[in-house]
Amino acid sequence: MTKNGERMVQQFWDLANQRQWPEFSALLHPAIVYLVPQTRERVRGREGFVNFFSTWPGAWNAKVDIQIADNARAVTTIDFEDETGTVTGISFFEFTNGLISKIVDYWPEPYTPPARVSPFVERY
Amino acid sequence: MTKNGERMVQQFWDLANQRQWPEFSALLHPAIVYLVPQTRERVRGREGFVNFFSTWPGAWNAKVDIQIADNARAVTTIDFEDETGTVTGISFFEFTNGLISKIVDYWPEPYTPPARVSPFVERY
Repeated sequence: MTKNGERMVQQFWDLANQRQWPEFSALLHPAIVYLVPQTRERVRGREGFVNFFSTWPGAWNAKVDIQIADNARAVTTIDFEDETGTVTGISFFEFTNGLISKIVDYWPEPYTPPARVSPFVERY
Repeated sequence: MTKNGERMVQQFWDLANQRQWPEFSALLHPAIVYLVPQTRERVRGREGFVNFFSTWPGAWNAKVDIQIADNARAVTTIDFEDETGTVTGISFFEFTNGLISKIVDYWPEPYTPPARVSPFVERY
């Protein structure tokens, strides 16, 4: 069963990178919910989510690492590359009846670290 | 095997919340590497990581959701609460020989969403 979730999220990103939206849509549950907690944005339903993703501006590509996956859930991290640079995306997937039924996306930005108490913290 | 990873990360957060640092330390591989990609901070080794975590200032508590876990990896999200408020943390764990050998932490901050092309995006 582990393989199913892995294959599902690999296909999700491959088809998005290839802009194969009908095939992409076939991976999604009709009642999919997409959330971005950092902005409190939400998209409900397969039609809306495909519209949201397929209208994303720019010549972007996602380089994918599948972090962990089973038959119910998966987590991927991506390097999302476009003409303005590269950002990291973290996506939590949930599956229902073999379809992607929920995605929660995070986009953590670089920031300047605070002063640290511990002397063991290095920069790389 | 799935249960091992789940139990490991549950114990990691429970023992940290309880400040039981010797027991906490026993979960960690001697050569553990801790990374914060957003700040490019790194801590190497069990002694350093326990020092870093145990000297974290303030009266904090982590409310944990184990997102997914197997015998090699796990991902948790936390509500990290202290006197200044609550922030979200995302932690990727790797296990080696039954010990936590790598942790990669992200701290995604709220931000104002850009203008969206799609009419299907709501705020919640």
